Amino acid sequence: MSEPDDEAEVMFANGAFYAAFAARDVDAMEQLWARIAPVACTHPGWNVLQGREPVMASWRAILTSPNAPEVECSSAMVHLLGGVAYVTCVEAVSGARLAATNVFVREDGEWRMVHHHAGPIAMPPEQTPTPKDQLN
Amino acid sequence: MSEPDDEAEVMFANGAFYAAFAARDVDAMEQLWARIAPVACTHPGWNVLQGREPVMASWRAILTSPNAPEVECSSAMVHLLGGVAYVTCVEAVSGARLAATNVFVREDGEWRMVHHHAGPIAMPPEQTPTPKDQLN
Repeated sequence: MSEPDDEAEVMFANGAFYAAFAARDVDAMEQLWARIAPVACTHPGWNVLQGREPVMASWRAILTSPNAPEVECSSAMVHLLGGVAYVTCVEAVSGARLAATNVFVREDGEWRMVHHHAGPIAMPPEQTPTPKDQLN
Repeated sequence: MSEPDDEAEVMFANGAFYAAFAARDVDAMEQLWARIAPVACTHPGWNVLQGREPVMASWRAILTSPNAPEVECSSAMVHLLGGVAYVTCVEAVSGARLAATNVFVREDGEWRMVHHHAGPIAMPPEQTPTPKDQLN
């Protein structure tokens, strides 16, 4: 499979993640995470969750909550590393802008999510920071 | 090479990143990032930086700043995905706790960093969140 195909497939997998999130579709969310590779997830402000069961439990809790947020993804960029890829993107979540890193692995012929990390963006879009603006 | 060796090597590479950061060692920082694989970096609160040059420029600015923060890494966990690995860990940065995701790729026989993403943790260590605590 050529790299353009991989890139399109990873972009599709990333889109499927946000579609499941936006639709509060627990089954779709469970389908798109890896079953073999080691899974972790860092929700905004949370300590990292390790392993498929805690991660799936967190998504079940979030997606079935009456407070489940609206979410939209933009500026997605795929970075291919062979059978692994990471995507950087911006999430608009209930009026806040978050920076997200999503890691995917090719497993059983599908690109599946192994890690999601989202956290707040404190600056306007595209602004170039100066050292004093940040911690590391 | 066996998986335990890979895990130890990735843990070492992650440690080298924090050693370079703590020592404000620009040359060491430049050495440990990938030269071939696609690089990105999301500093806390920043928009993501794409590509080796912008990422290295950000580290040069941070490490040479009089405001460069102290940093310590704890709770590092390596997740192997073949020739790629991601590490989750906690950073103590000037009194704040940050969740970090660090992605490494084996390149020219070395594990090199391709992506760093750090953002604030809002809850005490090891606390289990409830859905209302977070956004996604």
